Amino acid sequence: MQTIVKEPTTRNAINTFHAILEAAEDLFYKNGYHKTTVNNITSQAGIAAGTFYLYFPSKLSLYKHLLIQMSHDIRREIASKIADKTTRFEKEREGIKAFINLVRRRPHMYNIIWESLYIDRELFRDYYASFAKRYVRGLDQSVQQGEIRALDTEVVSYVLMGITNFIGLKVVLNLGDKNDDVDRIVDVVMDLIRHGLFITDAPKP
Amino acid sequence: MQTIVKEPTTRNAINTFHAILEAAEDLFYKNGYHKTTVNNITSQAGIAAGTFYLYFPSKLSLYKHLLIQMSHDIRREIASKIADKTTRFEKEREGIKAFINLVRRRPHMYNIIWESLYIDRELFRDYYASFAKRYVRGLDQSVQQGEIRALDTEVVSYVLMGITNFIGLKVVLNLGDKNDDVDRIVDVVMDLIRHGLFITDAPKP
Repeated sequence: MQTIVKEPTTRNAINTFHAILEAAEDLFYKNGYHKTTVNNITSQAGIAAGTFYLYFPSKLSLYKHLLIQMSHDIRREIASKIADKTTRFEKEREGIKAFINLVRRRPHMYNIIWESLYIDRELFRDYYASFAKRYVRGLDQSVQQGEIRALDTEVVSYVLMGITNFIGLKVVLNLGDKNDDVDRIVDVVMDLIRHGLFITDAPKP
Repeated sequence: MQTIVKEPTTRNAINTFHAILEAAEDLFYKNGYHKTTVNNITSQAGIAAGTFYLYFPSKLSLYKHLLIQMSHDIRREIASKIADKTTRFEKEREGIKAFINLVRRRPHMYNIIWESLYIDRELFRDYYASFAKRYVRGLDQSVQQGEIRALDTEVVSYVLMGITNFIGLKVVLNLGDKNDDVDRIVDVVMDLIRHGLFITDAPKP
């Protein structure tokens, strides 16, 4: 996923750059990508229309920049929360919790990330493919260290991303009951991931 | 979720109705909801522009009709595939497989369902809330019958919907390797759901 963006260096330029990003994030969430124009963005950011193009060649390049930034924000947030955890179990638990708390603070992340499906399907594919790739690397290590079972780690990565995303949706959109207690919800999820769902006397293979 | 649609009764009217739905499904997938006009739909369906309004009061009501129809199609497909299964384990396995095979045949289902997030957030909420409600009913039964553990079944329903959706995405968008063998992928998923992910000597609670 490539984007041609002129990263600013002076303090003024940095402020303008961030004002553009903030306005765009807000407008894409409220009105959607297709209905938002560059003029809407510069007007909300309080800058001259032409200034936009000092930083971004197009609305699409701005969107791509936002998408990459969000993916970095998610990774950084999770990484910082699991840095001091030693077991894979704790890493997964804190990772899911970090993701949910992040999208709670920034609920429009779902909108903007999933909207890539309607802007350029390849962006959506790249987003999850690259997330899965990093996930698989961590899972493979845990298999080698004997912490998790030797299942197909690529399939496992999509299972875990699916769980995290849908539990996040439940909390952010307040679907169903008791969504305030994120710790409790994550405990249920981890119990299921640890011990399985079914009552069975068969030993773990 | 309500929609005011005049369901047709004569053979001609039924054909026209379905031609409109088919054209809309195709155009919403290709160009998105917002970029598709009623004129685009009638023109692709090969009918006079005014005819549209004999069936649907608006583009939005047509979209809602499609969304409800898809949700019924998914439920009917899953129900038919699990009708003769007796254990919850088999029902879950066949249910996931039925969903994946359905979205493989109709990959634009994701687009159209998730696009509700950008058309009217309440539609998206309703869609998953009502799906979860039915899921919970089935899971609660299985808890009572001693087939699955007494976890919070609402949380469990989002976990299972998340897994199914993201595994479906992996297959439909061909993310990663070996996506042709749906049976094998579902076996990995069910192994994980049955026995858990982590290697632990702790007994199942």
